[in-house]
Amino acid sequence: MKQQLLQTIDEFQTVDELPVRDDTIVSYSGVPGAFAEQAAITFFGEQAHTLPVANFREVMEALAKGNADYGVLPIENSSAGNVETNYDLLSEYDMTIVGEQVIEVNQAVMVLPDASLSDIRKVYSHPQALMQCSRYLERMGWEQINMVNTALSAMKVRDDKDKTQAAIASQRAANLFGLKIVTPIGNNNSNNATRFIILHKNRITAMGANKIGITLGLPHESGSLYEILGSFNRHELNMTMIASRPIPGRQWEYYFYMEFIGSLESEEVKQALLEIEESSINLRILGNYRTLL
Amino acid sequence: MKQQLLQTIDEFQTVDELPVRDDTIVSYSGVPGAFAEQAAITFFGEQAHTLPVANFREVMEALAKGNADYGVLPIENSSAGNVETNYDLLSEYDMTIVGEQVIEVNQAVMVLPDASLSDIRKVYSHPQALMQCSRYLERMGWEQINMVNTALSAMKVRDDKDKTQAAIASQRAANLFGLKIVTPIGNNNSNNATRFIILHKNRITAMGANKIGITLGLPHESGSLYEILGSFNRHELNMTMIASRPIPGRQWEYYFYMEFIGSLESEEVKQALLEIEESSINLRILGNYRTLL
Repeated sequence: MKQQLLQTIDEFQTVDELPVRDDTIVSYSGVPGAFAEQAAITFFGEQAHTLPVANFREVMEALAKGNADYGVLPIENSSAGNVETNYDLLSEYDMTIVGEQVIEVNQAVMVLPDASLSDIRKVYSHPQALMQCSRYLERMGWEQINMVNTALSAMKVRDDKDKTQAAIASQRAANLFGLKIVTPIGNNNSNNATRFIILHKNRITAMGANKIGITLGLPHESGSLYEILGSFNRHELNMTMIASRPIPGRQWEYYFYMEFIGSLESEEVKQALLEIEESSINLRILGNYRTLL
Repeated sequence: MKQQLLQTIDEFQTVDELPVRDDTIVSYSGVPGAFAEQAAITFFGEQAHTLPVANFREVMEALAKGNADYGVLPIENSSAGNVETNYDLLSEYDMTIVGEQVIEVNQAVMVLPDASLSDIRKVYSHPQALMQCSRYLERMGWEQINMVNTALSAMKVRDDKDKTQAAIASQRAANLFGLKIVTPIGNNNSNNATRFIILHKNRITAMGANKIGITLGLPHESGSLYEILGSFNRHELNMTMIASRPIPGRQWEYYFYMEFIGSLESEEVKQALLEIEESSINLRILGNYRTLL
């Protein structure tokens, strides 16, 4: 086990910069105008070729099949919390986190140019965006319809030409699809941002990477999480995030997604991971990437 | 601070059994046939007077206004994870957890008696139930429409008399609303259960209570969570659940919802809580109640 973990760590290949060629393709879930597209462009630059797909799973499939070089997935929103299904996809697919990108999310309620707030009967958006605006939507009492992403909702409102329909999407999507914003403050939290992770098929890590993502299961024993955090503490590693998810098929057993500051090249990190592996189940190193400290 | 915490603990009044009279009213979000109603009836017995309300917040409001003696809220689902918005409601309203009830959730896709699977174009359900069935729904590609609860979705399908509509709800709801089940296996996890908490306005705890729920914020310091878990460990208290939520209005800061085995009357528990208060922000004791160990 110990040898295997060290071997996995050795498999991570350090590169000066993430490889980007003229024909590099970055996949995201949505249509142009989606926050994920914005994350892809901010991270890779305007010249990036983006590949919109239908949902989060398809981002993983595009990577697995070689249809894309990188993938972009939301992992955390500062007001609605964790994008939980994506932790499950990280467990299911063997992809590497190679970067992260935070995007300020300015959601707005938008309608056709000749419609107004009082016409609205139905609102279309991604479930995460509907959750971000839950208090507002409770008050309005509109029918809430899930779409695979926010930009697609804006596109639908444009195409259906139905004044009773509204979308919750970005101001960018409103411009792109010629919709009118009727209320710009559509979320529970004025300080709203989404953190996206950048995924790659190969185990690479950019020079200067300072954040590590892992998943692990914990045995049903008193103090097992304390053990794990003890390893971080002893090796002076700062955990920046912890999230728990049910283990599929097992009632009330959990796996954890954790992030901490460090480099896989550091001896302290290697020692901590060796200890953590001993007290956990199925430790997986998801990646080592750069974050702004 | 120390005195205040001990005073709060003293405010919890131990009762032999939770007070239930002939006119006791238990509020839940939904309509008859909802899993929450089933939880209320299983916990309080068939003679319980149940008060259906429109959403989770209204359950809290019914308690706050004295329209109900008890409230029932889902807190955790074994396949879709935590019912995150309810942690926020627990923070916002000063209610006490006095019990818990686990309900096996057998979701099913249901349609009008003369409709079939191939007619379905739209599916109505609670967002949590849609998430539980996300893999299945991805394959089917139906339009997904959020409803405030699963039973209301079944009622809508009955009332609209539209063959293209389906609901995801309990088998009990199918019977109640005369719908036909077209596929009984509608979730990601065959082992699917929801845990409900029972809330009361006053700080009471039933004799033999063995589980404690708390919320707390953590300062932005390395090792702050480790400190907290250390207190549990030193006093040999077993944490059974941990969930994190963003603090409203603060980017990437979190509060935690935790449950552990113990009684507020135990000296070890009091000592641990005093320590935890010192290393956390806004510690709140949500309740001390019975669980099956």
